[in-house]
Amino acid sequence: MSNYHTRVTIIGSGPAGLVLGHLLSLAGIDNLILERRSREYVEARVRAGVLERASVSLLELAGVGDRLRREGLVHEGIYLQFNGGRHHIDFRELADGAVTVYGQQEVVKDLIADRLAHGWPTVFEAEATTIADADSLGPRVLFRQQGDEHSVTSAFVAACDGTHGIGHRSIPTLTTYTLDYPYAWLGILARARPGTDELVYSYSDRGFALYSMRSTSVSRLYLQVPAGEDLGGWSHDRIWAELKARLESPGLVVNEGSITEVGLTPMRSTVSTPMRFGNVFLAGDAAHIVPPTGAKGLNLALQDALELASAIIESVYEHDAAGLEGYSEHCLGRVWRAQRFANYMTRLLHLDYAADEFARQLQLADQRGVVDSMAEATSLAERYVGPALDARSERIVKWFR
Amino acid sequence: MSNYHTRVTIIGSGPAGLVLGHLLSLAGIDNLILERRSREYVEARVRAGVLERASVSLLELAGVGDRLRREGLVHEGIYLQFNGGRHHIDFRELADGAVTVYGQQEVVKDLIADRLAHGWPTVFEAEATTIADADSLGPRVLFRQQGDEHSVTSAFVAACDGTHGIGHRSIPTLTTYTLDYPYAWLGILARARPGTDELVYSYSDRGFALYSMRSTSVSRLYLQVPAGEDLGGWSHDRIWAELKARLESPGLVVNEGSITEVGLTPMRSTVSTPMRFGNVFLAGDAAHIVPPTGAKGLNLALQDALELASAIIESVYEHDAAGLEGYSEHCLGRVWRAQRFANYMTRLLHLDYAADEFARQLQLADQRGVVDSMAEATSLAERYVGPALDARSERIVKWFR
Repeated sequence: MSNYHTRVTIIGSGPAGLVLGHLLSLAGIDNLILERRSREYVEARVRAGVLERASVSLLELAGVGDRLRREGLVHEGIYLQFNGGRHHIDFRELADGAVTVYGQQEVVKDLIADRLAHGWPTVFEAEATTIADADSLGPRVLFRQQGDEHSVTSAFVAACDGTHGIGHRSIPTLTTYTLDYPYAWLGILARARPGTDELVYSYSDRGFALYSMRSTSVSRLYLQVPAGEDLGGWSHDRIWAELKARLESPGLVVNEGSITEVGLTPMRSTVSTPMRFGNVFLAGDAAHIVPPTGAKGLNLALQDALELASAIIESVYEHDAAGLEGYSEHCLGRVWRAQRFANYMTRLLHLDYAADEFARQLQLADQRGVVDSMAEATSLAERYVGPALDARSERIVKWFR
Repeated sequence: MSNYHTRVTIIGSGPAGLVLGHLLSLAGIDNLILERRSREYVEARVRAGVLERASVSLLELAGVGDRLRREGLVHEGIYLQFNGGRHHIDFRELADGAVTVYGQQEVVKDLIADRLAHGWPTVFEAEATTIADADSLGPRVLFRQQGDEHSVTSAFVAACDGTHGIGHRSIPTLTTYTLDYPYAWLGILARARPGTDELVYSYSDRGFALYSMRSTSVSRLYLQVPAGEDLGGWSHDRIWAELKARLESPGLVVNEGSITEVGLTPMRSTVSTPMRFGNVFLAGDAAHIVPPTGAKGLNLALQDALELASAIIESVYEHDAAGLEGYSEHCLGRVWRAQRFANYMTRLLHLDYAADEFARQLQLADQRGVVDSMAEATSLAERYVGPALDARSERIVKWFR
């Protein structure tokens, strides 16, 4: 059993952990990332793919914006489609902004490559098993690697290890609020040229569907299905037929191609509070899950990481603990705004299996409202694109070496 | 038993029936109003009191705008208060408009006085009992007055007689959609100088309260209570104490005075469709009820009346039945928009007795959202003030004698 020391132990090499590590390393603050899975596994995980404008700025600030700028698809709007009628929500016009479509695993690849090139300490296939002395000045993380037990002691532990991670289980004071939706997303990744230049969010009386893409040759498509749906019933033929039935309309064709992945994404919201216990901090999915409708999960993870990096840098270099003290509350404000937006988008666009006619008519009025009212469309656009990166991030740059 | 003839039989002398009668009479189209109650009773009924900008224009167009202009209180905004923090929604700035506070019974008084001065046929204490031959060219309304049975035959019947009226019961094809909220409003009318110049919609963890007024010396106050609340438990002392607890905050004092009326308003939404059967038309509460939160009920009634008057005038003078054919669909679009707004305001501002913590946090995010976002505040302001009177109303003026 070896004993390591570092300033910040980061559990998990998803977007939150990697960006946090990057920002800290750039500021000269030692950190170690422990990742349970292999590098190959982590880099292949298909997840979200829409970056808010602040997330793009943040990745550029972290020095990993080159490929993103080259290969990311800038989207200046989305389409909302209701029973065949398609309406454009113009982000540039309404919110003076845009989002960038760039797969989460591409973000992860860029960060890992850059991290390893810098030689910043990273251990793959190292499973954190216990966080000890969480409320002390020197919390320890015990981890197992190739059958051996090790530990690392640090001033701060950042648990960026998802819903089922050790971080979540190690905070005794944690309360988790949950909302389960009665449907899920059947997600399809296909080698097929996208039939649309921007995302199409489509409500139909057969259920919701989303036409999105990862590149000009890879389509990412989703179908609303009942929660707990058995994927066995979904042949590739049935998938394409259902996608066409829910999405196709004048000017919109679903291009078929070879399906490379089919998966089920539950529609679930969770918020855990507080996001801090002693010197252990939760970030990203370890603290909150948003349903994918609002495309906020990846962005929240990156923003948590920025918030925590700023707080640690201020604490170390300016001896100011206010950022650490306010970390949980600050993040949770943003998390609830994101939950609200995801809930709004979800209820606007999904077939509510339990709705009576009154509820269905209210949903129809919601759908008409957002396309008939400039104010409502503006609110949607502003929340989709998100605010610009705030001034605080510029403050941390001054500590970069 | 006497038999009368007229062009349009109007059942009910609420705002919908009276405005419809006015517009038709001004255009030289004979009509008869049958009202079950006495003039005194009708003029004393305390109901809504907020007129959208189009409703004010409409009443001016009908020639009954003089006292409204003199005595109506023009409100250029409302306050939203959440747990003591008060936020102004500026209608002038956000929606380039305003509403006018003027009691529904004042509207009714003005219309009745003007109608009787013109000598337009009106029968009080005449209870319509049957609508016969509704789907014929000559529907008949049977009515009872002082024990005698009479009937009136006309080309059109307008049932403006509320939820429990004969009109509602006479349409065999009618489907009614309903949403019952689990709370009601305890309404208080008091001789007390209002402590605010604009309406204050207040959420508190004790429940919703509304501070409004009917004049500079009469306050109209509301408290959220559970549906079916027993008014016996509400002494005047308890009412004032609860109003103070829910409404008072820095700069806002609830002025006490003698309470002249206490009543319970259920929180209920209903929409009946279609609003036409043969030559019988429903207007106002006979076709739809909105909860009072959005202040839309009176305005919908006036807009139905305008729509129906326009359609009848076009049919009579231009031999164009399109307005009559489209009456139901046209009105229902507006009704569902109003239901949606009332539902939004209700859910934003009421204590949801059944909410779990997740739902409560979403409501809190909704409350923050509307005051933090110009776009959201604009949407609320636009919907509260309503659109300006449309061009069609100008077309009907040309038929006025």
